[in-house]
Amino acid sequence: MKEMTLAEAMKQTTYQIAGHGKRNLQVLKNAIHELEGDLGSDQYGQGQIIEDFQKKMASLLGKEEAVFFPSGTMAQQIALRIWCDQKGVPQVAYHPLCHLEIHEEDGLKELHHIKPILLAGKDKLIQLEDVVGMKEEIACLLLELPQREIGGQLPDYETIESIASFCNEKGIKLHLDGARLFEILPYYNKSAAEICTLFDSVYISFYKGIGGIAGAILAGDKAFIQKSKVWKRRHGGDLISLYPYILSSDYYFDLRINKMDQYYREAQELAEYFNQCSNVSTRPATPVSNMFHVHIAYPKEVVEPILIELYQQSGVGLAGNLREIDDHHCYFEVSVGDAYGKIPKETLDDLFRTLDVHMSRLSK
Amino acid sequence: MKEMTLAEAMKQTTYQIAGHGKRNLQVLKNAIHELEGDLGSDQYGQGQIIEDFQKKMASLLGKEEAVFFPSGTMAQQIALRIWCDQKGVPQVAYHPLCHLEIHEEDGLKELHHIKPILLAGKDKLIQLEDVVGMKEEIACLLLELPQREIGGQLPDYETIESIASFCNEKGIKLHLDGARLFEILPYYNKSAAEICTLFDSVYISFYKGIGGIAGAILAGDKAFIQKSKVWKRRHGGDLISLYPYILSSDYYFDLRINKMDQYYREAQELAEYFNQCSNVSTRPATPVSNMFHVHIAYPKEVVEPILIELYQQSGVGLAGNLREIDDHHCYFEVSVGDAYGKIPKETLDDLFRTLDVHMSRLSK
Repeated sequence: MKEMTLAEAMKQTTYQIAGHGKRNLQVLKNAIHELEGDLGSDQYGQGQIIEDFQKKMASLLGKEEAVFFPSGTMAQQIALRIWCDQKGVPQVAYHPLCHLEIHEEDGLKELHHIKPILLAGKDKLIQLEDVVGMKEEIACLLLELPQREIGGQLPDYETIESIASFCNEKGIKLHLDGARLFEILPYYNKSAAEICTLFDSVYISFYKGIGGIAGAILAGDKAFIQKSKVWKRRHGGDLISLYPYILSSDYYFDLRINKMDQYYREAQELAEYFNQCSNVSTRPATPVSNMFHVHIAYPKEVVEPILIELYQQSGVGLAGNLREIDDHHCYFEVSVGDAYGKIPKETLDDLFRTLDVHMSRLSK
Repeated sequence: MKEMTLAEAMKQTTYQIAGHGKRNLQVLKNAIHELEGDLGSDQYGQGQIIEDFQKKMASLLGKEEAVFFPSGTMAQQIALRIWCDQKGVPQVAYHPLCHLEIHEEDGLKELHHIKPILLAGKDKLIQLEDVVGMKEEIACLLLELPQREIGGQLPDYETIESIASFCNEKGIKLHLDGARLFEILPYYNKSAAEICTLFDSVYISFYKGIGGIAGAILAGDKAFIQKSKVWKRRHGGDLISLYPYILSSDYYFDLRINKMDQYYREAQELAEYFNQCSNVSTRPATPVSNMFHVHIAYPKEVVEPILIELYQQSGVGLAGNLREIDDHHCYFEVSVGDAYGKIPKETLDDLFRTLDVHMSRLSK
């Protein structure tokens, strides 16, 4: 008999510690269920569905205008291209683990011929001195808040302010990768608009904490947004109809925007559970958003069978895959959403007691 | 009182001669109504929903593999880029009214730095001698069948065969802009696969004759499709979930693929109605697909009020906008779909009798 993979074991669990539940057609059905069928489609970026939502998001982010994109990959490459063209400098700076650097098949380089300067070490946040110390001229600095690939860490708010002030002084545009912007508002205790005022352009996503199907918003001043619409057409993102994504983004935004506090508190609680287990620790130790990484001081192939057994015994899934750090360590990502609150407290207590026992045994 | 525009008058009509009915949310609702909510989403190009549909389309088109794209704009730029990179020649050839030349904000040039050679006159089809007579070296020739912007005209099948054979001999890849491929099968009396066998790569659309929400398929050999997936990611088209477009494309494909004969015959009937009116003629005179253009030998501002009155009297809409040809001529496009068959014969007869009376009066 072929052994079960972690992903397969995950699919069979009743509860999951992360996310909002399964990504299936019901997500779309729920979003459009109560809407009338005669609601007219958007048409190539025009029409009430798309214009209303763009206005709502522009207002929320405190920007002049906003435009809906099918993906953040498209939105962010375009933002950087506009700033580079405007300054006539095809160079930008971002973190070594920026989405554009590691998840987009080098679209920024291959399509836009923009060279990125990598700031800070892979496992560190970008600090003011990294920006000040840059020797190359750049058109734009991209900051990702929170820095996803290192567990969703955040700089002090003063650091962002000082970087923004430096960039402003030096004529460097500041772009926010705010895929998880709403998720960090409780930690900073700021509104989205307050944070965005430090940035020239902002991208937000609707399928992270918001839990929509797909889609992104890019916001900025009027001239910037006008240009971004031209580039959206060039990229093949100006679809005749984007309404399936817009309607679901709007629906899940309204449903979950006020739950970010709760997800944040639950992430802290959940991280504590993990940190009480031997050979397990979270990064950051205390989450600053709804997300964190769980590091395990054993190799992937040792940990996987333990987790599979744990999922089967407890009915609770922790993650569908483990990522290797090196030959002796692995980790997985957790983003807390609606699913966590559905797990009975007792089940959770049992789960982590068992996990601790398994992990302690490994040390012996 | 502000006068009504043609688009507003169009919206108030009971019947329309073109299309499949209104583009509204009901189109999506109908497509997913009977599907179970637990149907799992595709995830970044993986999963049963997307893989099954890609296989179905590859098989239909007689190609090794196929990949689903959010838009044809993205799919076609990518196809041309792959062929250009492979040959190391950043030049292609296409018709002066090719979609890439007039509707994509120069994405091919701005993103891919590919130079197009324009073949044939604006109001003509590309012929073998245009291709043979080309002085520049190109990596790929794009043929659009039917040539939409000149009323959906088609070359003889022998012409396509001779162009394909010449390209093959000269090491030029042949790409099919088959946005309306299914609509031309009745005229050529060929299967999609038979036509596609003449082409190295093929793009088809799901919101023209098929009447879906949005989406496209690009098909070709395995190596080509593998590369296209990398470029899809770079363009920002590798969405976490494309299922709203895939499910609706599949639904409307099954619903309408066998109606292309009917649309073609109805287009011929409808064109005859127009050609019987004074100062009105269709292009082509006899349609070769479900589409044609209606040319009127009067300026837009003279024709518009006549059409508005006609829509209000008859309850039938012909077009939502007129396009200027010059100071003395205008035209509109017609693509026959499900809407045409819903108009009572008597209403149609009355409509064209009235149109003829109005248009005759103008000559006096």
